[in-house]
Amino acid sequence: MSRRPGQLHLNAFLMGVGHHEAAWRLPESDPHAEVDVEHYKNLARIAERGKLDSLFLADGPVLWDQVGRRPSGVLEPTVLLTALAGATERIGLIATASTTYNEPYNLARRFASLDVISGGRAGWNIVTTANLDAARNFNLDHLPTHRERYERATEFVDVSLKLWDSWDDDVVLADKASGVWGDQEKIYPPEHNGKHFRVAGALNVPRTPQGHPLLVQAGSSENGRNFAARYAEAIFTAHQTLADAQEFYDDIKRRAAEHGRDPDHVKVLPGIVPLIGATEAEARELEAELSRLIRAETALPILAELLGVDIADLRLDEELPANLPAEEEIEGAKSRRTLVVNLGRRERLTVRQIIARMGGGRGHLTFAGTPAQVADAIENWYDNGAADGFNIMPPVLPSSLTRFVDEVVPILQERGRFRTEYTGRTLREHYGLPRPANRNTTTKAAAPAALRS
Amino acid sequence: MSRRPGQLHLNAFLMGVGHHEAAWRLPESDPHAEVDVEHYKNLARIAERGKLDSLFLADGPVLWDQVGRRPSGVLEPTVLLTALAGATERIGLIATASTTYNEPYNLARRFASLDVISGGRAGWNIVTTANLDAARNFNLDHLPTHRERYERATEFVDVSLKLWDSWDDDVVLADKASGVWGDQEKIYPPEHNGKHFRVAGALNVPRTPQGHPLLVQAGSSENGRNFAARYAEAIFTAHQTLADAQEFYDDIKRRAAEHGRDPDHVKVLPGIVPLIGATEAEARELEAELSRLIRAETALPILAELLGVDIADLRLDEELPANLPAEEEIEGAKSRRTLVVNLGRRERLTVRQIIARMGGGRGHLTFAGTPAQVADAIENWYDNGAADGFNIMPPVLPSSLTRFVDEVVPILQERGRFRTEYTGRTLREHYGLPRPANRNTTTKAAAPAALRS
Repeated sequence: MSRRPGQLHLNAFLMGVGHHEAAWRLPESDPHAEVDVEHYKNLARIAERGKLDSLFLADGPVLWDQVGRRPSGVLEPTVLLTALAGATERIGLIATASTTYNEPYNLARRFASLDVISGGRAGWNIVTTANLDAARNFNLDHLPTHRERYERATEFVDVSLKLWDSWDDDVVLADKASGVWGDQEKIYPPEHNGKHFRVAGALNVPRTPQGHPLLVQAGSSENGRNFAARYAEAIFTAHQTLADAQEFYDDIKRRAAEHGRDPDHVKVLPGIVPLIGATEAEARELEAELSRLIRAETALPILAELLGVDIADLRLDEELPANLPAEEEIEGAKSRRTLVVNLGRRERLTVRQIIARMGGGRGHLTFAGTPAQVADAIENWYDNGAADGFNIMPPVLPSSLTRFVDEVVPILQERGRFRTEYTGRTLREHYGLPRPANRNTTTKAAAPAALRS
Repeated sequence: MSRRPGQLHLNAFLMGVGHHEAAWRLPESDPHAEVDVEHYKNLARIAERGKLDSLFLADGPVLWDQVGRRPSGVLEPTVLLTALAGATERIGLIATASTTYNEPYNLARRFASLDVISGGRAGWNIVTTANLDAARNFNLDHLPTHRERYERATEFVDVSLKLWDSWDDDVVLADKASGVWGDQEKIYPPEHNGKHFRVAGALNVPRTPQGHPLLVQAGSSENGRNFAARYAEAIFTAHQTLADAQEFYDDIKRRAAEHGRDPDHVKVLPGIVPLIGATEAEARELEAELSRLIRAETALPILAELLGVDIADLRLDEELPANLPAEEEIEGAKSRRTLVVNLGRRERLTVRQIIARMGGGRGHLTFAGTPAQVADAIENWYDNGAADGFNIMPPVLPSSLTRFVDEVVPILQERGRFRTEYTGRTLREHYGLPRPANRNTTTKAAAPAALRS
């Protein structure tokens, strides 16, 4: 491999006391921390100490599991990130929110508010929420189809972009003498009249420091890739092998170019679950300890739902059944299903072993090793065109994040792979992305590619 | 009058650079402050220094006016209050949110998150949003009727209460040895199936420090009073005369009792716009200066809309027309319309004079005087059964709040009318209200009255 120029981008994906299913059972873990704002402030400060580009919170408007299984409280991310904005100064703040169960005016406004309050550090991870139980919290009896959800998502983002551009950057005159505060001519009401949404008026938040929040996406299905190539400025993705990650990376960059966008303005960040030890053996021991703490009986229903099969169809100490529903038949997380099936088949894993692998990272790459080995793995994917950076998913929080920041980041910095100080103020600056011009004041030809539709 | 026992409750109603229409034009005002989080943090700290019970933000999902008129940015309140939670320790945080343009699962969750993050300081001012332009931001061509809005609001609050009680207080077992985190038997999914909402599952936020956020309401119409008497724990209201305030106070307490509630658990807080001067003349001069700065041509459309008439029907230097639409014909802010009509008729004010009075407090009592006179006025209404405390609406921010806190509050404290230190930690404790029991675990007879429906 040859050394690729430029620097990595690193995002800290925070989740309760860690991404590992059983992290809460470790002696070190606080089993109440998942709803403790001080816990998250501490994590945010650790990530900022490491000069990471951003931190990120997943979300769904639903109680995900049986509460017997693991910590189940999830504070609403736009609210929690606002608290974290006050505890940090530079790090980007990315919140997940659903286009299926929100209204554009409300959500665009909340993200605009977060962008203003944080001084330009807000990002939106756009999801369509593939979960029947969530649908049942919003007047529905069925999960809208994958296609319907993406159709609504597309219009939702279009309306949001119109709302974020509904104030020009220079509306405010603040002319005290004449008593004229703003220039009404520079307000552009969307007057949007679409299939899913009719939104007439301008937002009641001025254009934000970033123009609009960074748009992030994580779908890897055909619909998901098209959506990401059109709108996403950063993509969180899950791959188990370098080859799969390269295929995805090339495909996304190609699709973005087809949409007339600069491929470098779409940052691809695969997830990695780093299990870090002073020695490889120590890292493996942590991995084994966490695997021992998974209760298969609570994890089995999750796997069955992902695969679209009955629990009774799965045998813990056998491989996956030969006949599984095809990706086309799944209305949920399509690409995640295929990733798990391929992993099981390729490595001939038993259901119990799959659960152990899933319990670590839910399909994301789990990597156990020394800090230098983790840094090597990250560089390897970066140099081989599989990633612009990584979505770091600490298996145990705060300890795995602390080790990553204090032990892996310095190696990447020494090797010239990662910043030693923040050079920008906004999330978009950290990712090397331009501030979009207001598309109401630029011609189509001159508009930044990210805003074309 | 005889001295009434107990102490006052005081809320700081924050609005940009002040409640007065023209406050932004004063030399002292920062005309960009309405979207500056540091401005609000400063205000929150001033209010907390004064040991006020709470602070409050109004809201609507709509760009209210022409931006020419006055500062028009409004950060979303649940997000802004989360930022203020981090800048304060004790003061309550009350956000307005609409039942007409939200979904219960999302909104109940955001308030639960704010209550958790703030350590039990969240309150929700429940509004139905009487504004056609807001409707047009949410797929509608018309404003739902007053009756329809209140019907939806009633079901919305019922569902929210079910969601806030969907976790028992003692769900979390955190049994690391057995691997059981929570007790599924203590999760109570709403399984709500109503006219406006179907919400099946439990919230994904545990029961909050306050049980649920303090419920606040501000409607004074017949529908509004019934709604408030049933649900509200604090009521913001607007009256110009002691007699009107007494009528409202008695009526609300009586209606609350009819709903089986303790009337003392519904705190009535009329709005007051205090214009404070070292002398009465100085206060009057501030009032006059602000009135001079109002531009009648931008205020006229607001008054016309409130009254349900055409702009051309109003003459700036004449009294209100004899024939105005009756309250029954108004689908907007019914009681506010009647208050303004009565004010104009009673004092024989010209339209220009009404605009000056409205510009100060939009129908709320404006009081110009020395700190001692303001304290006297507050005590007078309190002792005469017109108020349990006041909703303080500073005409200019921060200066009017600073003067109130530093000059009026000490007088009230000296007279034994107001706390000198916080004695509670939660918003509900500041208002002397009990933490509601979970109605899934108590019999109807034992349930706190506020939770009965």
